Amino acid sequence: MLIIDCHGHYTTAPAGLQAFRDAQLARIKDPFLPEAVMPAVSDDAIRESIEKNQLKLQRERGADVTIFSPRASAMAHHIGDEAVSTAWTRASNDLVKRVVDLYPDNFVGVCQLPQSPGVPVSHSVAELERCVDELGFIGCNLNPDPSGGHWTSPPLTDRSWYPFYEKMVELDVPAMIHVSSSCNPCFHATGAHYINADTTAFMQFIEGDLFRDFPRLRFIIPHGGGAVPYHWGRYRGLADMLKRPNLLQHVMKNVFFDTCVYHQPGIDLLAKVIPVENILFGSEMVGAVRGIDPETGHYFDDTKRYIDALPLDAAAKRLVFEGNARRVFPRLDARLKERGL
Amino acid sequence: MLIIDCHGHYTTAPAGLQAFRDAQLARIKDPFLPEAVMPAVSDDAIRESIEKNQLKLQRERGADVTIFSPRASAMAHHIGDEAVSTAWTRASNDLVKRVVDLYPDNFVGVCQLPQSPGVPVSHSVAELERCVDELGFIGCNLNPDPSGGHWTSPPLTDRSWYPFYEKMVELDVPAMIHVSSSCNPCFHATGAHYINADTTAFMQFIEGDLFRDFPRLRFIIPHGGGAVPYHWGRYRGLADMLKRPNLLQHVMKNVFFDTCVYHQPGIDLLAKVIPVENILFGSEMVGAVRGIDPETGHYFDDTKRYIDALPLDAAAKRLVFEGNARRVFPRLDARLKERGL
Repeated sequence: MLIIDCHGHYTTAPAGLQAFRDAQLARIKDPFLPEAVMPAVSDDAIRESIEKNQLKLQRERGADVTIFSPRASAMAHHIGDEAVSTAWTRASNDLVKRVVDLYPDNFVGVCQLPQSPGVPVSHSVAELERCVDELGFIGCNLNPDPSGGHWTSPPLTDRSWYPFYEKMVELDVPAMIHVSSSCNPCFHATGAHYINADTTAFMQFIEGDLFRDFPRLRFIIPHGGGAVPYHWGRYRGLADMLKRPNLLQHVMKNVFFDTCVYHQPGIDLLAKVIPVENILFGSEMVGAVRGIDPETGHYFDDTKRYIDALPLDAAAKRLVFEGNARRVFPRLDARLKERGL
Repeated sequence: MLIIDCHGHYTTAPAGLQAFRDAQLARIKDPFLPEAVMPAVSDDAIRESIEKNQLKLQRERGADVTIFSPRASAMAHHIGDEAVSTAWTRASNDLVKRVVDLYPDNFVGVCQLPQSPGVPVSHSVAELERCVDELGFIGCNLNPDPSGGHWTSPPLTDRSWYPFYEKMVELDVPAMIHVSSSCNPCFHATGAHYINADTTAFMQFIEGDLFRDFPRLRFIIPHGGGAVPYHWGRYRGLADMLKRPNLLQHVMKNVFFDTCVYHQPGIDLLAKVIPVENILFGSEMVGAVRGIDPETGHYFDDTKRYIDALPLDAAAKRLVFEGNARRVFPRLDARLKERGL
């Protein structure tokens, strides 16, 4: 059985990436500055950033492949305009591509998108195509709130998102629904905004009819689905009150939850109420919560341990660790088959 | 043992209340209309609205006392200006007072506040005092987002909230943190906005030092604490990363969760990870989710069943059903003692 971690970000990128971003930010303040240029980043710098972090932990914890994308909190689509977002997105995706090229057995790429508040998401189609067709990426991270905590975009079920979904279906790639940092002081990024966005997206899917229009569209809602599994009764009951079909038919053919829930009781609940076909192993390691749980002596984000401890049979665990990811990411499945896996 | 339901709203108020609101809304559109006047509502109309709903279910399900407040989704602090909010709030609170007067053994009042976007919360002090001192209410519902889904107020830990907290401490009343309806199309009220607000408030408390300044301030976070128990490991880990004290010391001396979680696995998780001293029985019945769970044949919001089924000893259940509510609401405790309970 392969262990596929569906949720990893390049949180440890070499300093050159941040230097590029800093030059962008400086130019937002002073438009007379030259356009930001991505500095040279050596393969050795990339190797060091990965081998001491994600690759080391992948090996220690016993995972095989990480689905890898730019740092989510750094996407910050609300900073600058569309041109800034586009340049930052390309630089970030290109760096992920270099990681994948250096460690093709260990990482596979998922792209950030050049979203920007008020800019049609159709403008992100070109970067998705570039990343899938030219860089060999297998999916994308879609931000339901490019405003960074002001929620000024329409719900994900609104037709304004459809041009992007059409391209996702055409390329047969899923999206992880992932907000970025918050510029709203009410919302701590990883403690409130992320989890709220997960919950919000799920409820939008209940209210809408998106998967009637796009039966092959697939989304991963990260962080264990936000609040949804804990409130599964509420969502079943709300679907009923809103005269929506059963959630398993209405939403769960197209929506998947990862396992970025950082304690055993949470994972136990997830596996108890959500069909095993809808759960993808993920850790978001080296991410929001990097410490060691004093109650267990292990890293909070070593989520493989929690799944190992679940009372699931071997076939079910294989789905969570491998099978579901290969089904949701057909381009990953093809890649693995080419490698005889 | 008394069974105290800490979370009930007057969702079934007689039509007169809505007629008053409709007159308010009409006058917002047409300021030449006369000011809204609350129509006469008979005791019989109130009796019918209660006896067929909350009181009937209270008896059927075996609860004794419900802590009762105006309908949360109808508070709608974002509609109209401060004067509109104030008049609506007084009318809504006065109607709850009439329920309490008709059924003093079964209901005890908690007030809505005349919050309004951009208006200092100190303007809500007078209504809190009126409701506690004159109407005999025992607490209040505090809206962390009077804008209705745009989150334009500062976090609950900001000093601008302090004048209200000072009055809460002086009166020795807690607040349930409860948003109202959402005018942001991204957020379904009961499916996203409510749960997000619960999660958001908890994370604000982690980030801040509010309970150092107000060691006797007490909040109930409803809906089982939003996403917090499911992500308890994340919050423990984030507190650690943010160099905050242990959550039990830092937040959980002052923050309590109700049991408005509408399925057994959710309640099981709540009771597993959250200290029993921090859990108050609540149902929010006749509320967001009014249907029957086809998986159990019982009402989703009949939350007493879930607690009955918990593997807790008698002393722990007594805390959840009675003791914690009497500790968090000292004015309820005094009232019950007067009745020899």
